[in-house]
Amino acid sequence: MKLDDLAAGVLAGERRSVARAISLVEDGSTELPALSELLYPNTGRAQTVGLTGSPGVGKSSLAEQLVRAGRSRGRTMAVLAIDPTSPFSGGALLGDRLRMQAHATDPGVFIRSMATRGHLGGMALAAPEAIRILDASGKDLVIVETVGVGQAEVEVASATDTTLVVVQPGWGDAVQASKAGILEIADVFVVNKADRGGAGDAVRDLRNMLRMGPKVDWGPPIVKTSAVSGEGIDELWDAIEQHRKQGEASGDRQARRRRRVIDEVKSMVAFRLGERAAIRLRQDSGGLAADLEAREIDPYRAAEILLKGVAGSNDAGEATIGERNG
Amino acid sequence: MKLDDLAAGVLAGERRSVARAISLVEDGSTELPALSELLYPNTGRAQTVGLTGSPGVGKSSLAEQLVRAGRSRGRTMAVLAIDPTSPFSGGALLGDRLRMQAHATDPGVFIRSMATRGHLGGMALAAPEAIRILDASGKDLVIVETVGVGQAEVEVASATDTTLVVVQPGWGDAVQASKAGILEIADVFVVNKADRGGAGDAVRDLRNMLRMGPKVDWGPPIVKTSAVSGEGIDELWDAIEQHRKQGEASGDRQARRRRRVIDEVKSMVAFRLGERAAIRLRQDSGGLAADLEAREIDPYRAAEILLKGVAGSNDAGEATIGERNG
Repeated sequence: MKLDDLAAGVLAGERRSVARAISLVEDGSTELPALSELLYPNTGRAQTVGLTGSPGVGKSSLAEQLVRAGRSRGRTMAVLAIDPTSPFSGGALLGDRLRMQAHATDPGVFIRSMATRGHLGGMALAAPEAIRILDASGKDLVIVETVGVGQAEVEVASATDTTLVVVQPGWGDAVQASKAGILEIADVFVVNKADRGGAGDAVRDLRNMLRMGPKVDWGPPIVKTSAVSGEGIDELWDAIEQHRKQGEASGDRQARRRRRVIDEVKSMVAFRLGERAAIRLRQDSGGLAADLEAREIDPYRAAEILLKGVAGSNDAGEATIGERNG
Repeated sequence: MKLDDLAAGVLAGERRSVARAISLVEDGSTELPALSELLYPNTGRAQTVGLTGSPGVGKSSLAEQLVRAGRSRGRTMAVLAIDPTSPFSGGALLGDRLRMQAHATDPGVFIRSMATRGHLGGMALAAPEAIRILDASGKDLVIVETVGVGQAEVEVASATDTTLVVVQPGWGDAVQASKAGILEIADVFVVNKADRGGAGDAVRDLRNMLRMGPKVDWGPPIVKTSAVSGEGIDELWDAIEQHRKQGEASGDRQARRRRRVIDEVKSMVAFRLGERAAIRLRQDSGGLAADLEAREIDPYRAAEILLKGVAGSNDAGEATIGERNG
């Protein structure tokens, strides 16, 4: 398929084109910059929602419930599940396939899990590009779901307009959520599996932990949900809408988006130059790498030498930005 | 304290110097390169052991049991707990302080949690430097414990000589471990909390998942432990020793260490150049950043322009490695 046709297909919201474009992201294709150029002017319309929490708290079912809630309100929906690519799980998640079936014939829904095989600097670079494809395809709301709960996952889930942090009763307690470093990124807390006992305790624990944190403009609401009974899904939808409106009114959303794209460009530059440095380090047979191994030179010094090699003599950062048409 | 004295203190294994050196890492101090130069020739002796698994599986108690096991065998031990720095947890973990007390008067043990505040590219860069400090201080075995379980945590835990992956009965099941992408990094599996029911099931599930994975030289053993009763800790110790011996004999350990230090230098270079690019992007008022926001230029194109600015004209990577004495 020609790239112009692919871009046109994405913009028309064609399922096959969207799937193919996301595969290009997954594979770290060299065609991405050209595709990005065609799609980027048509992005920025979708509301993006991050969904994170420990494995097993029910993020996938919750995403599915949000899709239903959105559809019943006439909104088009996309779910992007970021899979950390275990060779054991084979790339696609079981739940993904199950959920797919329920919405397989609805053109207003696109659900996809994306493996990040280390191309492009992993999920931190792949996720925003895939989100933009879904955005450009005309979906009103894009849900980004991470499987694990770690530094990189937290970064991906928080690189959205509204971040949901999901816990479950007895998931440990609020101390575990706190230890995982995910309390402070939440715009909305979800205590899922509220049909089981202990949801009230989890809400109380979260409230107590939040009280210990810094004061902020937006105090994250805590919503109890049950993906089984559908309890609380309407409240969750309203909380997301509320956060969107507040962000638009205060300018927070705009500011957050601006920071995000700068961070992304920075990561791209860093990743590419890091790759360049690694290639040199490997090519430099009998040189730096051997000296490092023999402990004749330490990593900082090696990095400094490579920096000079990669970045030329512009070491103090005085050089001006390159020509726009360069 | 002068840097020479600090380095001498670390090499003498003085607790205060070691603590202070790790604080420098935590703070992203500009003195690190100079300190690293002094310590690096004295590293490489310690066996490093990574410990990862979902929050709440009992990694901290397991680390403490391994410290006891090592001490009873006359080995000196260090534990480095990587804290993803929640403002809610205040940096130091509760369990850390409790464990500290049991070994507070034993000069053969050093336990420390380290917050990574985003300096130096986060835990991926901070952890190896802190590990080297503990190595240089003369500890025989350095245990690195991560709190979360995500891409970055998995990378840190697997950047060691021997990686332990801890699960608990009913932690979900092996499918959850598989989804979290941590099966393939394990050199040894630990099914902790074996005093509770269901440990046998967890072992069986893991075995089944492993059978589906790629064939490897070292088939990771699965050890059942209980931090409460001490069950299985001796077996775990033996499994770690076994892995060390096999790695030394096969050359795997050496090869793994070589890849690790190259990855680290690459990350350092990438991080520094990324920072440089971000500064330019911010300084370039009314330019690139505004064009990005107005969607007149896409992130790939912006990255390309910055790459030219940061890396000079050495765009095709043809430039030679800089002068060693440069």
